[in-house]
Amino acid sequence: MSDDPRARLIDLAAQFYDQFSLGEVPSMEVPTRSKTNIEYDEESDVWVYGDRTSTRSANTVGGARKLLKAVYTIEFLAQQLDEDRSSTLRELYYLSESWDEEEAKFSDQSQSDKLIEDLEIVSGVKREDFHMRPEESGATLMGPLHLREQTRRGAREIHCQLDVGEGGYQIPNNPDTIEFLDHDADFVLAVETGGMRDRLVENGFDDEYNVIIVHLKGQPARATRRITKRLHDELGLPVTVFTDGDPWSYRIFGSVAYGSIKSAHLSKYLATPEAQFIGIRPEDIVEYELPTDPLSDSDINALESELEDPRFQTDYWEEQIEIQLDIDKKAEQQALASRGLDFVTDTYLPERLAAMDVV
Amino acid sequence: MSDDPRARLIDLAAQFYDQFSLGEVPSMEVPTRSKTNIEYDEESDVWVYGDRTSTRSANTVGGARKLLKAVYTIEFLAQQLDEDRSSTLRELYYLSESWDEEEAKFSDQSQSDKLIEDLEIVSGVKREDFHMRPEESGATLMGPLHLREQTRRGAREIHCQLDVGEGGYQIPNNPDTIEFLDHDADFVLAVETGGMRDRLVENGFDDEYNVIIVHLKGQPARATRRITKRLHDELGLPVTVFTDGDPWSYRIFGSVAYGSIKSAHLSKYLATPEAQFIGIRPEDIVEYELPTDPLSDSDINALESELEDPRFQTDYWEEQIEIQLDIDKKAEQQALASRGLDFVTDTYLPERLAAMDVV
Repeated sequence: MSDDPRARLIDLAAQFYDQFSLGEVPSMEVPTRSKTNIEYDEESDVWVYGDRTSTRSANTVGGARKLLKAVYTIEFLAQQLDEDRSSTLRELYYLSESWDEEEAKFSDQSQSDKLIEDLEIVSGVKREDFHMRPEESGATLMGPLHLREQTRRGAREIHCQLDVGEGGYQIPNNPDTIEFLDHDADFVLAVETGGMRDRLVENGFDDEYNVIIVHLKGQPARATRRITKRLHDELGLPVTVFTDGDPWSYRIFGSVAYGSIKSAHLSKYLATPEAQFIGIRPEDIVEYELPTDPLSDSDINALESELEDPRFQTDYWEEQIEIQLDIDKKAEQQALASRGLDFVTDTYLPERLAAMDVV
Repeated sequence: MSDDPRARLIDLAAQFYDQFSLGEVPSMEVPTRSKTNIEYDEESDVWVYGDRTSTRSANTVGGARKLLKAVYTIEFLAQQLDEDRSSTLRELYYLSESWDEEEAKFSDQSQSDKLIEDLEIVSGVKREDFHMRPEESGATLMGPLHLREQTRRGAREIHCQLDVGEGGYQIPNNPDTIEFLDHDADFVLAVETGGMRDRLVENGFDDEYNVIIVHLKGQPARATRRITKRLHDELGLPVTVFTDGDPWSYRIFGSVAYGSIKSAHLSKYLATPEAQFIGIRPEDIVEYELPTDPLSDSDINALESELEDPRFQTDYWEEQIEIQLDIDKKAEQQALASRGLDFVTDTYLPERLAAMDVV
């Protein structure tokens, strides 16, 4: 199979053609995307889809329509790649309105979104390589890193402390356009909230500890996870993750470290299995006497669901989740401000990072 | 009254002191913040609070507690300004946990948020000048603008096309730290969605039309509105706003042009009354045959509420809203992709901007 994204898409269309030629009903097989069909890949240390598959076949009118939409989409993507253009998922949905074949048009955006996911999985090509952009990205990076970004208007060399404002460097939709030139960093610190990211930058934490601060902005976009992984793999930097202390934030850590169920086909490209969780750990809530909120019913359900999630079945997470269910409390990362605005950079992070052997 | 934010805060505390000295019950008067208490200020051309006020008085235990919290907060803010530090609204809430007086602590963040708004209004000082940061900002700017941002680490000179990646220049939390050095821009185009912002940048619209593209990111943050106003006032650039064609997007336009009800005390600082709406106008939906969705009940309610909103009582908006209720349809800005990916930059925007006499 070719490495060229355009060729891979055409291969897929050729497969339908061959099926027709042989008198077969055209079909396409995709892995089943559910929690029960992900498994640990020893070799790459990430979670990937298992063996269960679903078939999209033209043996029904609905199925045939799906494959027709797939063929039209492949043609559009091949042309987009020819012209070195890009588009968003929403634009693709609307663009189908201009297609000559009424049956090929998408009736809502969930159809086109799902089809692009199918095409990614079946062709083994990432959405970014189809030049499909997300609707919003918007995460930023700040730290002692000098990079070159290849933009449509030429290359830009940017130092992510000296050449940017307080807002930092805006990570582009496809961070594979970035080349790392030079750095003076000891590790990467990925931060959930904007308030904490601004606190660390204001307190000069990136400067004092030679750390690249990546703002996760809640559940991180693919671009954010991708650049984090590249900082780890290519620069050999330890990756640490700093979030709120609740089950939703553990999922944020999980998507950085293990990949998400929805995009398990991309785990090797997006996940950083060596990423370490700083906190807020349930035991930090006790140790640092943080202001807390009680767990809600949905928090408790989410924690219990994590205990059953293969990605969280480690001694570390089982212990932390049991502690949390026991103390029945959660805390936000900004709760550290109850000990003063500098507590996080003077005490909490240095203590935790030392305990983790990162500094 | 002093222009120095710290002095203004101390004045406020001094007022309570004087009230005590005179044997009066301490109190503080704030304008009532509701749709029925905003009025048009002829002089500044923006909507401001009217004459109705509410009183926070210590004549009840609850009222006394509020003033106590206000005094503790004033002390914290004065100290923060002394030390040239800053903090987020959430940090303030948590920080109150460290205060020695139990009654002064905030029991939830809505209390501290509201108090900061009260202090802004009563002291006439903006939150930014108290050095209070929002939790998230994150909007970006791209265009022929050269600026100098004063950061805590020294000044940074940045050209917002040549010195940034495809993600653009990240607007800092307080854009008053920016000095405009030079520009080659003919107007400002503020865009609601990230997908459309990326489309305009990919198509080189900022370059071809000498336009500064500001990403609004939905309902714009204060920093985004402030820099937009400054681009208009200081550089004399026309401001145009490009959103989806639905009542929620008209409110986004409204917050750029007229200010919001929640922050009408800041209209003179944040609103750009000369801003012009590009679209998607309801009549564009008809003229350009855009793919649409039917209006939901909440859309219809929102449109009817806009008809009663003094800020939308102009011939232009009344006509557009009547058309929309009549055709019973709405359209997103990315629906223009149904005419091809370049339709927005080759046809729609040039036609609309010419009709508006902007180009």
